[in-house]
Amino acid sequence: MKLTPKGMRDIPPDEMLVRKQVIENIEGIYRLYGFRPLETPAMEYLSTLRAKAGEEVDQQIFIIKGGEYGLRFDLTVPLARYASAADFPKPFKRYAIERVWRKEEPQRGRFREFWQADVDIIGSKSMRCEAELLTMSKELCSSFGFRKPRIMLNNRKILNAVADELKLGRKREEVFRVLDKIDKQGIEKVEKMLGESIGKKKDELLNYVRPEGTNEERLEKVRKLSAEGVKELEEIVSLLDFDVEIDTSLVRGLGYYTGPVFEIKLSEGMGTVMAGGRYDDLLGIYGRRDCATGISVGIERLIALILEKGKETRKKTQTSVFVACAKHDFYKEAAKIAGSLREKGVAAESDLNERNLRKQLDYVNSLAIPFTIIIGKRELESGKLTLRDMESGKEEQLPLEKIIKKIKSG
Amino acid sequence: MKLTPKGMRDIPPDEMLVRKQVIENIEGIYRLYGFRPLETPAMEYLSTLRAKAGEEVDQQIFIIKGGEYGLRFDLTVPLARYASAADFPKPFKRYAIERVWRKEEPQRGRFREFWQADVDIIGSKSMRCEAELLTMSKELCSSFGFRKPRIMLNNRKILNAVADELKLGRKREEVFRVLDKIDKQGIEKVEKMLGESIGKKKDELLNYVRPEGTNEERLEKVRKLSAEGVKELEEIVSLLDFDVEIDTSLVRGLGYYTGPVFEIKLSEGMGTVMAGGRYDDLLGIYGRRDCATGISVGIERLIALILEKGKETRKKTQTSVFVACAKHDFYKEAAKIAGSLREKGVAAESDLNERNLRKQLDYVNSLAIPFTIIIGKRELESGKLTLRDMESGKEEQLPLEKIIKKIKSG
Repeated sequence: MKLTPKGMRDIPPDEMLVRKQVIENIEGIYRLYGFRPLETPAMEYLSTLRAKAGEEVDQQIFIIKGGEYGLRFDLTVPLARYASAADFPKPFKRYAIERVWRKEEPQRGRFREFWQADVDIIGSKSMRCEAELLTMSKELCSSFGFRKPRIMLNNRKILNAVADELKLGRKREEVFRVLDKIDKQGIEKVEKMLGESIGKKKDELLNYVRPEGTNEERLEKVRKLSAEGVKELEEIVSLLDFDVEIDTSLVRGLGYYTGPVFEIKLSEGMGTVMAGGRYDDLLGIYGRRDCATGISVGIERLIALILEKGKETRKKTQTSVFVACAKHDFYKEAAKIAGSLREKGVAAESDLNERNLRKQLDYVNSLAIPFTIIIGKRELESGKLTLRDMESGKEEQLPLEKIIKKIKSG
Repeated sequence: MKLTPKGMRDIPPDEMLVRKQVIENIEGIYRLYGFRPLETPAMEYLSTLRAKAGEEVDQQIFIIKGGEYGLRFDLTVPLARYASAADFPKPFKRYAIERVWRKEEPQRGRFREFWQADVDIIGSKSMRCEAELLTMSKELCSSFGFRKPRIMLNNRKILNAVADELKLGRKREEVFRVLDKIDKQGIEKVEKMLGESIGKKKDELLNYVRPEGTNEERLEKVRKLSAEGVKELEEIVSLLDFDVEIDTSLVRGLGYYTGPVFEIKLSEGMGTVMAGGRYDDLLGIYGRRDCATGISVGIERLIALILEKGKETRKKTQTSVFVACAKHDFYKEAAKIAGSLREKGVAAESDLNERNLRKQLDYVNSLAIPFTIIIGKRELESGKLTLRDMESGKEEQLPLEKIIKKIKSG
């Protein structure tokens, strides 16, 4: 029996409960900011996908037999394609938390099927958009307990102006690719690589963009080259009520960005979990001339971190109480009590296997359900039920209403 | 520019808000009963899919180029495949609300990509499972305002015993297929078709299973043939505290069912929206000898009904209030107020387009956002903000806390 396709996996209930909580949380915050959900098909015309893919991603598309369709590799292409024909009030603030597929070589933590959580704003040139995206991202970090995220900001206009000034010509892409590695490989190594690539121009380049000094100092160095790029960043910063780090060497991939770009780490020393930027040209590919900016949460990485952190406390089920019966005859009564609990919003189960009490309790323990109500003759006669706290083993005789209160309160 | 692939569609925000609410509601009820989420990949080995598909469905599989994988056509195959290798306490109560794909000819309301909402119980032979599934389904109907669903029940064991008794032999499948049409085509027409198929045996057949008389009468007619099948249904009924209809002619597809089967209509005269049954042999195909029963909600049909019903009241956004500014200078203040609203759980937006007040209000109206807060010089000086109820046009000057209270209360 073969199991899941290469690079794909089943997600069992205990992990799913965490995932769903993370996703609900993210979605809740998106909605508080007025972002609206949009769902698009898992597959798109291959020509739609290829219009943006670029060579590397193109190789990674899962193509449907017949060759007309492929599975989407991100959520930006479907958004751009949708926007090309849709009619909406501007700005169009949409979110999507969905699966995408890429036929990459699987690695630890990298899968061929994974979820993305994207928010994008279509139809506003204003830096208010960037400020809102960053404010929301900061709040998202806080909501997961990361109160000091590292938020880095640059503007593609600045990098492009530097490249123009240095007349990098066809070396531009290569230089950007090297600059992108400062974070992972360190400035010394990057300096050496730049030397090999553009010789003595590397000093001039690093004079402009070396990540040192205050935000103001970094911006001053490039203001002459890109007054507009600098002004945009200053505008964003003026709208924020928390600190960010201007990093004029930040490349943020080689993609389609045309303005401010950003990258957020949950805390100093941790990998990037959110990133994005302005891409005013992309929608044009799909036939709509309009500006856009967005940010994507690396939800798989975020979930992995949270799963790792909460390993010991991970729940196997959301069921709060199991209504056990001492004898089969009492099952209907047990099911009725489970029903009353559910009516009050308490997740409850009863014995579906016609097992004896000991085996019912084995089931309760195997799923770590916190409480058991035991129904026997005495209980039914007295109107008081036995509630067992499964962790302490303590038992109490209580009427149902008191039990409900107790379970709900803790 | 080509849009979505054939038989697939984008779901715009206003529909998505309804969909998400329906799904959240269903999921909430599943969880109250202790069902746990399981996620499996969109694609499976083609051999896994084909082990169950049957000829018709086999033709409908979207195959991934290369021929090794295909997109799942239901959620039962992945569950059975997962269960074959997984270790879990029994019963395993799992739910899944996910997309599936079938390359069918698209029709009104029938798509090539659609969602299913399945609950299944693996590892219990007891009729308590069926009773719980039906109780939960009844509650689901109620939660959507359908208080008198029509719940129909049969047992495959009864139909099989009748077929054996009449020695239908190779005609069995054909006869079942015809019986399945009583609901849509009426008993007279079915009677005629049965006559063409099995001649005078049709009278004997209908003597056993004709849907008339009380539940007890219907069961009495077949008790001799399938004491076990009848007893199982009686057990289920004894555990329910609402009425169901025993219909010994109910076939419920030609699938893999081996025991009780059920079909639920939201109300008299409406199409089936939930259906399921016991399939004790299916898991064996994937290498796990275990019993199983489940029910699937026709979520697309349910959503279509609810969308139709709530056409006039459909929301375009969940945003409750827009914080407009009379002058650009006040934007930072407006954004701050929007932030305070969100902190209190009120979804709020501010102007991302640097527009004048009139255009900001156009945006508010185009999304039917119920309230606008207007920030001007007077407001900032007095500490009282102007709240406009967009429907009535009425304005009030209130401090922020009062505004929050007002918006939250209605």
